Amino acid sequence: MTNKSVIELVPGRKHFFYYPTNVAIVGVSASKVNFMPCAWNTGLSYDPFLYGVSIGIERATRGFIDEKKEFSVNFVDFHQHHLIRSLGRSSGLEINKVKHFDVKYTHGEILDCPILECAYLSYECSLHSRVVLGDHVLYVGEAKLMHVNNDIRDETIVDTSKTAPLLYLGVDHYLTTDPSSLKNLKDLPFHYTSSKK
Amino acid sequence: MTNKSVIELVPGRKHFFYYPTNVAIVGVSASKVNFMPCAWNTGLSYDPFLYGVSIGIERATRGFIDEKKEFSVNFVDFHQHHLIRSLGRSSGLEINKVKHFDVKYTHGEILDCPILECAYLSYECSLHSRVVLGDHVLYVGEAKLMHVNNDIRDETIVDTSKTAPLLYLGVDHYLTTDPSSLKNLKDLPFHYTSSKK
Repeated sequence: MTNKSVIELVPGRKHFFYYPTNVAIVGVSASKVNFMPCAWNTGLSYDPFLYGVSIGIERATRGFIDEKKEFSVNFVDFHQHHLIRSLGRSSGLEINKVKHFDVKYTHGEILDCPILECAYLSYECSLHSRVVLGDHVLYVGEAKLMHVNNDIRDETIVDTSKTAPLLYLGVDHYLTTDPSSLKNLKDLPFHYTSSKK
Repeated sequence: MTNKSVIELVPGRKHFFYYPTNVAIVGVSASKVNFMPCAWNTGLSYDPFLYGVSIGIERATRGFIDEKKEFSVNFVDFHQHHLIRSLGRSSGLEINKVKHFDVKYTHGEILDCPILECAYLSYECSLHSRVVLGDHVLYVGEAKLMHVNNDIRDETIVDTSKTAPLLYLGVDHYLTTDPSSLKNLKDLPFHYTSSKK
């Protein structure tokens, strides 16, 4: 049958089998403008629309968000992998990443947060809440405004034939999607026994 | 330049441009054994190793975890997309999904949670905490034990030439990764100015 190992999880010993994840780049305009890629990110609520980014306690971005209480969440194409890796393997406490890596950005329209120019999707978020969980802080953003590139989207989903999302696999490995693998199952019947969908 | 739209986020109006996401299948052995695919999932802490799954308030799984306080988090290959879509478009309040869809599972080794047999990765989690966020509840699991298929992994990351992670793109669309796109940037220099890595 399958060849599985059962492994006790020793705290702090890292593994990354739960990846890939779509990389979110968190932008803050605090004492300086700063961007940090965040592998641990997820939607959290539709109404209100809440989006979460989990940030290491020791990260500069953690302090910047605590200070500013507004931030952007940005998503970029796969061809940006070198830039994003550099933004991740440097510290906003030590260098000015925007100058050092020549990062282009614009200003948020309703919130004071930096919008990554190369992003195909950006949210302007106000801080809804924060939750300390182990060695990270989950910042919950209430997204107020969305910047989205019209060229890369279908009605409500990303058109992966037009853009290649930047996925992170762990240990500085990046990859993207295979658009030819796409399966659209939306016209299959549901399995609810009541009229509820 | 880029052709971006700026869109106000109307609460409750759904869009899915932040996808793709690696689908986590949440298993609970409560009054019945139940599995639910969860698109909104993420790592939350290394020490302790915490993993989060965000579950709609009205979902059967929410009540099952509240009752049981233990659950599994499972990841499967892309070829399981039909099964996973069926598990998502049905309700454990109405049917017995395990019987209805002939789902094979084993029992957790140290916790009473169901391990999906077809999963290449499963965590046995005890409930660390729960956070109500808008119309969802974030369940934070402390992973105690990992079941991982030896055939599909490198030392600490998934070998995408051996398995194709099941990614969700929204509106019942599924796709997977392109293993030929993989970029390994781990040997590039870091950009820290101090000795800190």
